[in-house]
Amino acid sequence: MPALSRRLFAEALGSFFLFGCVVGSGIMGERLAGGSEAVALLANSIATGAILFVLIGWLGPISGAHMNPAVSLVAALRGELPKVDVLPYTLAQLGGGIAGVIAANLMFDLPAVVWSTHVRGGAGPWLGEGIATFGLVLTILGTVRHRPEHVPSAVALYIVAAYWFTSSTSFANPAITVARAFSDSFAGIAPASIAGFVIAQLAGALLAAMVAKRLID
Amino acid sequence: MPALSRRLFAEALGSFFLFGCVVGSGIMGERLAGGSEAVALLANSIATGAILFVLIGWLGPISGAHMNPAVSLVAALRGELPKVDVLPYTLAQLGGGIAGVIAANLMFDLPAVVWSTHVRGGAGPWLGEGIATFGLVLTILGTVRHRPEHVPSAVALYIVAAYWFTSSTSFANPAITVARAFSDSFAGIAPASIAGFVIAQLAGALLAAMVAKRLID
Amino acid sequence: MPALSRRLFAEALGSFFLFGCVVGSGIMGERLAGGSEAVALLANSIATGAILFVLIGWLGPISGAHMNPAVSLVAALRGELPKVDVLPYTLAQLGGGIAGVIAANLMFDLPAVVWSTHVRGGAGPWLGEGIATFGLVLTILGTVRHRPEHVPSAVALYIVAAYWFTSSTSFANPAITVARAFSDSFAGIAPASIAGFVIAQLAGALLAAMVAKRLID
Amino acid sequence: MPALSRRLFAEALGSFFLFGCVVGSGIMGERLAGGSEAVALLANSIATGAILFVLIGWLGPISGAHMNPAVSLVAALRGELPKVDVLPYTLAQLGGGIAGVIAANLMFDLPAVVWSTHVRGGAGPWLGEGIATFGLVLTILGTVRHRPEHVPSAVALYIVAAYWFTSSTSFANPAITVARAFSDSFAGIAPASIAGFVIAQLAGALLAAMVAKRLID
Repeated sequence: MPALSRRLFAEALGSFFLFGCVVGSGIMGERLAGGSEAVALLANSIATGAILFVLIGWLGPISGAHMNPAVSLVAALRGELPKVDVLPYTLAQLGGGIAGVIAANLMFDLPAVVWSTHVRGGAGPWLGEGIATFGLVLTILGTVRHRPEHVPSAVALYIVAAYWFTSSTSFANPAITVARAFSDSFAGIAPASIAGFVIAQLAGALLAAMVAKRLID
Repeated sequence: MPALSRRLFAEALGSFFLFGCVVGSGIMGERLAGGSEAVALLANSIATGAILFVLIGWLGPISGAHMNPAVSLVAALRGELPKVDVLPYTLAQLGGGIAGVIAANLMFDLPAVVWSTHVRGGAGPWLGEGIATFGLVLTILGTVRHRPEHVPSAVALYIVAAYWFTSSTSFANPAITVARAFSDSFAGIAPASIAGFVIAQLAGALLAAMVAKRLID
Repeated sequence: MPALSRRLFAEALGSFFLFGCVVGSGIMGERLAGGSEAVALLANSIATGAILFVLIGWLGPISGAHMNPAVSLVAALRGELPKVDVLPYTLAQLGGGIAGVIAANLMFDLPAVVWSTHVRGGAGPWLGEGIATFGLVLTILGTVRHRPEHVPSAVALYIVAAYWFTSSTSFANPAITVARAFSDSFAGIAPASIAGFVIAQLAGALLAAMVAKRLID
Repeated sequence: MPALSRRLFAEALGSFFLFGCVVGSGIMGERLAGGSEAVALLANSIATGAILFVLIGWLGPISGAHMNPAVSLVAALRGELPKVDVLPYTLAQLGGGIAGVIAANLMFDLPAVVWSTHVRGGAGPWLGEGIATFGLVLTILGTVRHRPEHVPSAVALYIVAAYWFTSSTSFANPAITVARAFSDSFAGIAPASIAGFVIAQLAGALLAAMVAKRLID
C-alpha cells in the first residue's frame, strides 16, 4: 500500500475532477438544454460515468479511488483500509471535491461559491439515496470479487443508471452531497437538505456490507 | 454451482435492480423530457443497458444472472440449469422484480402499486417481441460460446439496440412483462396485454434455441 | 474456416439484425423525436453501434461478420477470403439484410416494402461516403493487426462517429445502401441514388486497401 | 520504434479523422438540433470520444497516436519521444488535421475554408482549458502506467467528460485549436482567440508533467 500522503493526494485529485465534473457538466447542461431537463441529465450522467471510469482506472491502484466516505467506511469495516485512515480520506475527498466545485463555478464565470437553494428530501428521495448507495457498495464489492478488471466500468455504469432510477439523481456519496451545496445549479443541494441524504446513504452502505457477507464473500 | 438459496437470492436481487431501473428511469425520463418521448427512451435504454452490464458482471458467476424466465427455460432445455430450478428461478425473478417496481414507484413518491393502462399488442409489437427475444437468446448463446468475457457488454448493448428497433421497446422477458404492469408510466403494460407478449417471447426463445443447435454449438 | 453454408447463414443472420436495427431504430427515432432530427440520429447511431458490437463479437469467429460486400471484397483482395466466396457473401448479406428491413417495417405496422423517396447524392455526400468507407476499412485492418480484441468495439464506435461526421450519416456499405431503399423513413435512400453511393464506397474501400499496405501490413 | 515517416503518416491520418470528426459532427449537430445546443454537444462529444477510441487503438502502436502537440511535447520532456521529433509531429498533426477540417466542410457542401467568427476567451474558458489539458495529460500518464490496456477508452471518455465540465467544451489541444479556426460552426474558434487557448493548454500540460513525477512515476 503506497504512503498515506500519496494516497490522500490521489483521493483529493480524483475528487477534484469527479466533483468538478458533476457540477460543471450540470451547469453546462442547464445552460445549453433550453429547458429540457432530460437532455441536461443525460449529459450530466454520461459525463459523470465517463470521468468515473477514467479516475478509478488510474487512481484505483494508488489509493483505491474511493472519492466517497461511505466507500472508505465500508472498506475500513471490512479490514481493507486501516481504520485510522477513514478520517483523513474523508477530509481529502471533501477538500479536493470542494475545490473542484469551486473550479467549476470559476470555469463558467460564476462566483467561486454560490450556496445552493435546491431543497431535496422526503420519503421518496431518502429511499432513493438509501437504495442507490446500497447498490453502489454491492456493485463495488461484488465486482471486486467476481470480475476485478471491470471495476472502473461497472462503477461508472452503475452511477449512470442510478442517476436515472432514483428521484434524487443518486448522489450516493456523503462528500459529494456536502460539496454540491457550493453550487446553485441543476446539480446543487441546499445545505439544510444534506443531513437527511447522508443518513440515508450511510444506512444503505451498511446494509450492503451486511448483504455482501451473505452473498459475496 | 452455488447452493440454490444463494442463486435465488442473486436472481431476486438482480431482478430488483434491473426491473426497478427499467421502471424508475422510465418515470424519470417521462417527468423530465417535457413531451420528447425520444429523449425519455434514450435515457431509459442507456440506463437499462448500464445496469444490465453491472448486474451480469457480478451476479453472473453466482446464478447466471438470468433475471429472465425465458433465459432460464432455454438454459434448462440445454442442460445448463437443472430442470427443477426453472420454477424457483422464475418466482425469484418475479418476486424481486416486482419489489423493484414497487420501490421505483415509492422513490418517485407514487403509490406503491399503480396498474398500467398502457395497452400494447397487435401483429407489429408481437412480431417485435418474438424477434427481440430470438435475438437476445442467440446473443447470449453465441457470446457465451465465442467471446465469454463479452457476455455482460453484449447483452447490455443488445438490449439498448432492441429498445430502438422494436415498436414495443423490446420487453423480451416474461417476468419484466408481468412486473411492468405494476407501473402506470412510459414503461408500463396493461395487465390484459401480458399474455400476448409472453407467448411471442417464448416462441422467439425456443426458435433461437433451435437455430443455436445448427449455428453455434 | 467453417463450411461455406454455415458462414453464409451467419452473414445473413447478422445482416438481418444489423439492417433491421438501422431501419427500425430510424423509424422509432423519427416517430418519437417530434421533429428533433438530432435526437433521432443520436438514437439511430447508438442503436447501430450497439448491435454492431454484439454481432461482430459472436458472428465474427464464424464468418468474419462482414455484413458488408465492400469488406468482403477487400478481404478477398488480401487473400483472407476465397475469391469465389465474394458473390455468395454479397447475396447472403443482401438477402438477410432486405429481410431485416422488411421485418422492421412489419414490426412498426408499415407495409412490408415501401420504396424510399429520400434522394441523396452530390459532391458532399459522395465525398462523405468515400471517406467513411476508407476509414471503416482502415479501422478494420488496423485494429485486426494491432489490437484484435478491440475489433467489435472499434468497428461499432467508428460507425457511431461516422454517422455524425458525414453529411449522409455514413452508409459505408453497398448492401445496406440497397436494403435501405426498401424503407421510406429517416434512414431510407431513393433507388436512383444507390449507384452514386456504391461507387463512392468501393472507391474508398480500395484506397484504404492500398494505404493499409504502406501503413499497417 | 517505427521509421519517422511512418509515424508521421500515422499522426497525419489520425489527425485527419479526429479533427474532421470534431468539426463534421459539430456541423451535423448544429444543423439537426434545431436550436437545442445541448443535443448538438451530446452528439459532438459522443462522436469525438468514439473516434478517439478507434484511432488510439490502432494508431497508438505505430506513432503513439498523440494527435496533439501538447502530448508530444510532454512525451519529449519525459524522454519517451526524441526531442527532434516534436516539430515534425506538430506539423503532421496540423497538416492532417487542417485537411480533415477542410474535408468536413466539403462533405457538408460548405466552402473549403470558412474562418470562424466564434470569439472565445476570458478567465473562465482559459482556466477551463488549463484544467482540461492538465487532466488529459495526467489521464494519459496515469493510465499508461497503471492500466495500459485502457488507454484508448480512458482518453476517449476523459474527453467526453471534459466537453461537458469546461465552459469551452475542452479543446485541450493546440493543433485542434488552430484547425478549428477553419470552420465557422458550433465547433469553431476565431483566429484571434487561438493564442490565449494555446498558452492555457501548454501551462496545464506542463503542470501535469510535474504532478506526474510526484504521483505516478
